[in-house]
Amino acid sequence: MDMTALRSAHPDHWRLASALRVLAMDAVEAAQSGHPGMPMGMADVATVLFRNHLKFDAAAPDWPDRDRFVLSAGHGSMLLYGLLHLTGYEDFPLDQLKNFRQLGARTAGHPEYGHGAGIETTTGPLGQGLATAVGMAMAERAMAARFGDKLVDHHTYVIAGDGCLMEGISQEAIGLAGRHALSKLIVLWDDNGISIDGAVGLSDVTDQPMRFRASGWNVIEVDGHDPVAVDRALSEAKAGDRPTLIGCKTHIGLGAPNKQDTAKAHGSPLGAEEIAAARKAYGWEHGPFEIPEDVARAWAEVGARGVPARAEWVARLEKVSARRREEFERVVAGEAPKKLSGAVRRLKKEISEAQPKIATRKASENALAAINPLTPETIGGSADLTGSNNTLTEGLGVFSAEHPEGRYVYYGIREHGMAAAMNGMAVHGGVIPYGGTFLCFADYARGAMRLSALMGARVVYVMTHDSIGLGEDGPTHQPIEHLAMLRATPGMTVLRPADAVETAEAWEIALTLNGPSVLALTRQGLPTLRVKHQTRNLSAQGAYVLAEAEGKRRAILLATGSEVEIAMAARESLQAEGIGARVVSMPSWELFAAQDESYRRKVLPRGAVRVGIEAAGGFGWDRWLTGERGDSRKAAFIGMEGFGASAPAPALYEHFGITAEKAAAAAKALL
Amino acid sequence: MDMTALRSAHPDHWRLASALRVLAMDAVEAAQSGHPGMPMGMADVATVLFRNHLKFDAAAPDWPDRDRFVLSAGHGSMLLYGLLHLTGYEDFPLDQLKNFRQLGARTAGHPEYGHGAGIETTTGPLGQGLATAVGMAMAERAMAARFGDKLVDHHTYVIAGDGCLMEGISQEAIGLAGRHALSKLIVLWDDNGISIDGAVGLSDVTDQPMRFRASGWNVIEVDGHDPVAVDRALSEAKAGDRPTLIGCKTHIGLGAPNKQDTAKAHGSPLGAEEIAAARKAYGWEHGPFEIPEDVARAWAEVGARGVPARAEWVARLEKVSARRREEFERVVAGEAPKKLSGAVRRLKKEISEAQPKIATRKASENALAAINPLTPETIGGSADLTGSNNTLTEGLGVFSAEHPEGRYVYYGIREHGMAAAMNGMAVHGGVIPYGGTFLCFADYARGAMRLSALMGARVVYVMTHDSIGLGEDGPTHQPIEHLAMLRATPGMTVLRPADAVETAEAWEIALTLNGPSVLALTRQGLPTLRVKHQTRNLSAQGAYVLAEAEGKRRAILLATGSEVEIAMAARESLQAEGIGARVVSMPSWELFAAQDESYRRKVLPRGAVRVGIEAAGGFGWDRWLTGERGDSRKAAFIGMEGFGASAPAPALYEHFGITAEKAAAAAKALL
Repeated sequence: MDMTALRSAHPDHWRLASALRVLAMDAVEAAQSGHPGMPMGMADVATVLFRNHLKFDAAAPDWPDRDRFVLSAGHGSMLLYGLLHLTGYEDFPLDQLKNFRQLGARTAGHPEYGHGAGIETTTGPLGQGLATAVGMAMAERAMAARFGDKLVDHHTYVIAGDGCLMEGISQEAIGLAGRHALSKLIVLWDDNGISIDGAVGLSDVTDQPMRFRASGWNVIEVDGHDPVAVDRALSEAKAGDRPTLIGCKTHIGLGAPNKQDTAKAHGSPLGAEEIAAARKAYGWEHGPFEIPEDVARAWAEVGARGVPARAEWVARLEKVSARRREEFERVVAGEAPKKLSGAVRRLKKEISEAQPKIATRKASENALAAINPLTPETIGGSADLTGSNNTLTEGLGVFSAEHPEGRYVYYGIREHGMAAAMNGMAVHGGVIPYGGTFLCFADYARGAMRLSALMGARVVYVMTHDSIGLGEDGPTHQPIEHLAMLRATPGMTVLRPADAVETAEAWEIALTLNGPSVLALTRQGLPTLRVKHQTRNLSAQGAYVLAEAEGKRRAILLATGSEVEIAMAARESLQAEGIGARVVSMPSWELFAAQDESYRRKVLPRGAVRVGIEAAGGFGWDRWLTGERGDSRKAAFIGMEGFGASAPAPALYEHFGITAEKAAAAAKALL
Repeated sequence: MDMTALRSAHPDHWRLASALRVLAMDAVEAAQSGHPGMPMGMADVATVLFRNHLKFDAAAPDWPDRDRFVLSAGHGSMLLYGLLHLTGYEDFPLDQLKNFRQLGARTAGHPEYGHGAGIETTTGPLGQGLATAVGMAMAERAMAARFGDKLVDHHTYVIAGDGCLMEGISQEAIGLAGRHALSKLIVLWDDNGISIDGAVGLSDVTDQPMRFRASGWNVIEVDGHDPVAVDRALSEAKAGDRPTLIGCKTHIGLGAPNKQDTAKAHGSPLGAEEIAAARKAYGWEHGPFEIPEDVARAWAEVGARGVPARAEWVARLEKVSARRREEFERVVAGEAPKKLSGAVRRLKKEISEAQPKIATRKASENALAAINPLTPETIGGSADLTGSNNTLTEGLGVFSAEHPEGRYVYYGIREHGMAAAMNGMAVHGGVIPYGGTFLCFADYARGAMRLSALMGARVVYVMTHDSIGLGEDGPTHQPIEHLAMLRATPGMTVLRPADAVETAEAWEIALTLNGPSVLALTRQGLPTLRVKHQTRNLSAQGAYVLAEAEGKRRAILLATGSEVEIAMAARESLQAEGIGARVVSMPSWELFAAQDESYRRKVLPRGAVRVGIEAAGGFGWDRWLTGERGDSRKAAFIGMEGFGASAPAPALYEHFGITAEKAAAAAKALL
């Protein structure tokens, strides 16, 4: 259908959609930066979605049972901001749109979770929104299973572009959604045939509908500018029993005479001339950022469409038992259950009595076995390494379409998809996701892990086999730079516990943090080192004195995880030679860095030589060795200088010189 | 077909395949570690491939025109080692197999490129082999276009498992191969329906043949234990004009009575009992690692099958003109063209005369424009950011099935697939790949970038928009921790040039390195700072004194890339106040760390306060600030403490305090 025909066939729709288009053009022009083409192409689809389908109340953006809308093609952020503004979200007055992409505005270049209510997740890195939405739909199903569909019954809608579908993460997301028949997940594909380099055909010939069908999706294809067709497709999608892809044939930059249907419409201001011509094509006779009253009113009505539904929902919530309602509100607010810290204390007591020699991955399983029954909001899983990651505890049940109450997800060999899905669960709310893989495969999950950090999403990454200690699988599976990579990421808390006690503490920290955490856990067995000080969570301070020097303190041995055992042995041999040596266990650099200076000084005083021990690359260690202020001129690091090797773990520790002997010798050489 | 029927129908084949099976069982049992199930399941397929199709000569593993065989399901490494041993590769005598997974053996847990001739690429992280093979097939096509099919005409075969196909990178690889109709790429899918957590159906319901067809592949499905069917499929695949997936229905752990067709056969020793029973089922009456003479002879014949073909190839090479032959041998050996360094010198001279103020991404384009015509082996590309990465130079031509001579690849929105394909090109040999994306999206490419480093593959990552200097796109696009992540990776050389001169030098370094490099380049314009010392490649020293202190040296300002300009301005203002300040430009930490200590001391002497300036997180900077040995107790870092923001770049630099004023003030505060 051509523009004129559409305009005359659906005059009301046309004006609403035009408002989105001109706001996108105007804001990008004002900022002299941004992406007008996608909002112009998808305005019709978005208008139909918001006007006829999306369950929301602009005045109550935190309504837990709202439909979620994810703009996976995040560069088209002005489409979202336009919608939020026009429908009346408080955080998005016109000034915000006028300040698009300016410092301090809520209208960042790409939608940023937390900048304003109405932005459901951070998008921009392509494919993330789609994969995150899969997690939202999973969380919805889990919550509905737990609290019933009177309280939880909503859809997740995604607008995705060609870029989203070309990124590998999309396949992981599609596969996961298909396996779980996430029927409330509806993806609107902006099928405009254009990417930055030109026609999509330059780089891809994939038949996307066929690809989605191959993974068990329902697929509908429509003219994305025909509101009736889009509406019908959405109705059909909602009625289906599988996730649905709606392929929307659109024109990028619709109405810009020289740029429509070209890459030129994608990522830069259209310029005054094109904008004027597009306005004319739309029949839009209003100035920049000017919304005529009839259109403003119509959009405001859209924003209030959900008021009755929300009132009914509130009424239903009020009918629920107080206990059930409190529990619902607790998990939605993300509060930890009160019994958590008591359970961890009990567990620590048991450990200090039994003093097991177990791998921290096994200690993690034990901790989960104690915690999971008390925290019905946890949803565990693994990227096909369940037995290795020790992430499945008794009685969790396996999540599926048939068993939505199951709390364990077989994510498949999909680290990236798992991480993004966990982001989606976390920002959806009501559940706390944790998921396992090998630490080395943080590489695969990086894109989504960064978003966990950027959003401050409470996602727990259970990353086992955290060093050369994994042994024979060799260098492709042995993390060397991964601790540095994760520690260097703002907002990420890395926890590398030294024994079962610290592992229990790490879980308590992870489940109560306002942000993501990585639990780096061993494959190999470790002795219990913490037999005193069980009550307080010492790991929460990031680092602490595990063993004090006897006599004059001449050396400080700093270590994390499996190497704390080595530090303790090195201390023994130094003390045997009359050299006073302190051992500092450092389960978390970030938490230690967050302590006040007096505590940090107490743990790491001047005047002693320092030896850091970690079976990883030394990148970043100087901060604690030579010290933040050059505290110690005499310091050494015992760790890895390059990649690992394939051999049994003890042989590797010996081969790479990560031993108590070397650590003690290093200290002596410095003295 | 059941085992007994197969055994009697194809007795010779059966014995050859059985040898592979028992070697895998025996080696895993001896190591008490490893993955026997896949080799046992895919032995028939591998036997047919090596016996009837693969073009190779075990005595000449470096024959440039050999077919490439990639074991993407790298955990089944014993299948590869068994094949290499039995066919007579010198690097894989029986002792190597007996020492499977032991320290120093070539038979690492997963195949490691460089450990022994015959291992074409490192695999293990799932999906990588498949995606790497796409690059090999692209390199083959490019080389054939350049040197003719008399010299270059070979296939690339891949064995991939369910894990490879579930990883997102597989979609990027499939899409890329489909787009380019890589007809010489043949993937043998080990369709055994089992992953570590159990049945593949637990996590995936994807119809893989349909999915591959959707991206333009030819698909054939066979019984993977029927040698006739496999043989026919391979013949058909070779005759096709598109890449082919051969779905091979197999039984994991074939013949192990209690473990076949279960996850138990996947990743641990079978145990003596199962092994004995499997031997019986195979009709194999020989001890561990014992290969009867008839089987040894038959396999040796397979290893020599390619001798005549290779002789013919050598004869053809000898007929080629000396110049052409030398050029072929030069690019296969990976030698840089002699004119490269002269061209870079000339370019630097021009720059120092013109002193342009340009972004380093533009300077990179200029360098490529000078270099590409002299290095016909470079193959450029971008993950759909051609205009932003400035990776396309005039006259390269666009690579496609119709134009195999084109030297520019539109990789699409596939950073991971691009990186892996570049690995494949690099290890294939004869070409030097470079490819662009934003530095932030190193996240997406991480899995393959790590393999570049582990393999020492000469891949050049052109990563533009390398800081908050990219401006309005905001925190999702602004790298903070990425320089640290890449610098922490062993074997990766990160180059962050400060101006057009250093950019030209960076390209010279990158193209002559024995390993991968990252060029971190700006979006924003930068002045030419290097106007003296043009002849030598100063960047090759990693860091050097760009501007000496006037008067007593009291401060050293260290900076990289775009922040060197800030350091120079800070120096100006310090000097104006009579404070002698040196500016050290540090384009590469790795190259600087590789210099001898006397040079490092010369550049960073004791006794001056130090201020590091980099628009990134400070993780890792302590090494150069407080110094490797606590050289300087007085040091400060001017950079980012958290994520970036969306705003014009100048506003961001101001907002985050990355300015000459702050740097000068920091130096003064320390003094």
